[in-house]
Amino acid sequence: MATDSVVEGLRARVRELEEELNRVRRHETHRAKIGKMSAEVVDSNPYSRLMALKRMGIVQDYEKIRTYTVAVVGVGGVGSVTAEMLTRCGIGKLLLFDYDKVELANMNRLFFQPHQAGLSKVEAAEHTLRSPPQSKKKVHFSFSIFGQSLESFFFSSNFSKGGLQEGEPVDLVLSCVDNFEARMAINTACNELGQIWMESGVSENAVSGHIQLIKPGETACFACAPPLVVAANIDEKTLKREGVCAASLPTTMGVVAGILVQNVLKYLLHFGTVSYYLGYNAMQDFFPTMSMKPNPSCDDKYCRQQQEAYKVSLCRFISHSQGQIQRCLRMDLPVLLCKMVAGKRRLNRES
Amino acid sequence: MATDSVVEGLRARVRELEEELNRVRRHETHRAKIGKMSAEVVDSNPYSRLMALKRMGIVQDYEKIRTYTVAVVGVGGVGSVTAEMLTRCGIGKLLLFDYDKVELANMNRLFFQPHQAGLSKVEAAEHTLRSPPQSKKKVHFSFSIFGQSLESFFFSSNFSKGGLQEGEPVDLVLSCVDNFEARMAINTACNELGQIWMESGVSENAVSGHIQLIKPGETACFACAPPLVVAANIDEKTLKREGVCAASLPTTMGVVAGILVQNVLKYLLHFGTVSYYLGYNAMQDFFPTMSMKPNPSCDDKYCRQQQEAYKVSLCRFISHSQGQIQRCLRMDLPVLLCKMVAGKRRLNRES
Repeated sequence: MATDSVVEGLRARVRELEEELNRVRRHETHRAKIGKMSAEVVDSNPYSRLMALKRMGIVQDYEKIRTYTVAVVGVGGVGSVTAEMLTRCGIGKLLLFDYDKVELANMNRLFFQPHQAGLSKVEAAEHTLRSPPQSKKKVHFSFSIFGQSLESFFFSSNFSKGGLQEGEPVDLVLSCVDNFEARMAINTACNELGQIWMESGVSENAVSGHIQLIKPGETACFACAPPLVVAANIDEKTLKREGVCAASLPTTMGVVAGILVQNVLKYLLHFGTVSYYLGYNAMQDFFPTMSMKPNPSCDDKYCRQQQEAYKVSLCRFISHSQGQIQRCLRMDLPVLLCKMVAGKRRLNRES
Repeated sequence: MATDSVVEGLRARVRELEEELNRVRRHETHRAKIGKMSAEVVDSNPYSRLMALKRMGIVQDYEKIRTYTVAVVGVGGVGSVTAEMLTRCGIGKLLLFDYDKVELANMNRLFFQPHQAGLSKVEAAEHTLRSPPQSKKKVHFSFSIFGQSLESFFFSSNFSKGGLQEGEPVDLVLSCVDNFEARMAINTACNELGQIWMESGVSENAVSGHIQLIKPGETACFACAPPLVVAANIDEKTLKREGVCAASLPTTMGVVAGILVQNVLKYLLHFGTVSYYLGYNAMQDFFPTMSMKPNPSCDDKYCRQQQEAYKVSLCRFISHSQGQIQRCLRMDLPVLLCKMVAGKRRLNRES
């Protein structure tokens, strides 16, 4: 028979350990919920440095960030940092898609930690992103986008109903995948929905990357000027050799995620100039920009439909009478765009 | 008196809790130590994607990264991401300097987590950076660089003796601070030592930034063309108003940290073109580059000494005889540089 003091000592130790365990666990997952974005300049306000963008005259209505939903497809070297930046900027809702698991081989990039090896990337990202207090609401999906049946309808249904309000579409889709098959599936879904999206990519030798804004019908889609692998219908899995892997650097991926999310903020919050294409050549520190018109003979039928719809909206803008619209629709896109620019100039002179 | 079974139950619970606590804590601080950088392409190898840079023909000797020490002054929005990138790239040794504590107001940038609020930034960074397995050895310092006596000798002694080998200098110093006083202290220390360093900065409105490589005597130092606040000897603390804070974005800071560490990798591992100055204008996605020669009338006497030493080394390169060196030293730096370029061209033609 034990004495009461032994039992009391053991009970005290159990309480102590339980408290310690709770404390350690809280440190891992602590998340203060904050209802309103405050502009108050105090050390305890996680929004003060974001809301300062208003006082500095950069963004007119920063709080609007809380009303937007962004879908991030691919939560690897670029996608994970993209998701973290959006969370810390206070995005309303984030949808994450990835089929893959965290590996130690990913540790040369930012974000994932060695103890997360073996977890799904979406699950690990959720754990990390739960912590910063900026995000109001986050929903996460996990799905194989490399399965036997890589279908664009999976993306269509999630993009068209995944918004902050139930059944509403998302505001923007970001592609952070590392292969053409997944890009083509996202492209098809976005063309079908008329969903604006941004593409991103990093080269296999790790020293260049790019971002691209795609507005279906208005700009070239991913299929309008496809990479050789896609155009020649080559199965890209046959290109990967056993024992050979792509190089990657946290620097290049951090820069690409940074310019991607910067473009997202400029697009959603209406400030600065949104880039249609911005490249990054790390060897020479060269950052090319360009924009590309859609291909009228694009293989994607939804892209061709969106081009027609865009032409109609342009013609409506230029002229209101039915007869003029018919004449207008027979014109080429570049001619229409010139007409629109000339019309805007005339309006500016008159006003 | 309690029964033996109660005691046994409590003892089992204590064991269970201790194991659970250890498991949770291990997850927080787990770090696999890896002696050699392996190029093997397996999911468990954290170096495979870095070593692939050799096979891709980008870097000749990636392993050399393990022999270098980099000092990072300022562990805020840029410095913390810089330190994480360097760690994940496998840097040999990292020295971190900061006086400040983590605040919730920092949560709109990458890296720090809300549960670290109140910890010193260096302490919190050490905890996070202990985890990735790439780094062989890391040493951390914490010191107020904003105290009553902001002295460059503190930096001098740490930079000159902080290398991987005891008593050796560091290989590179990175300035990631947010004020001119600290930049001037780093500048003085580096001029005195002839220590090559890189400057970085982000504007108060959060939408532009830059990096700059400074080679004492060869390029302009921070005092050669000082900002107005420094030139006019204004105490910058008088410029800060109560209740007003600077804006900041994780995007801009991520891009600046990315181009900074990319420049570090290119400089240390000899690939690509190292930038002397690279700016980032986020509003227009404009990335200006330039280089600046030192000011012969620089206020910093160490800078003027380094300029003289650089002229001597240039003259030695151009001509070996003593008489010629004396003539050569009377020439201006631009004339000397032209002579050197011409000499190199002649050598190339002859070989």
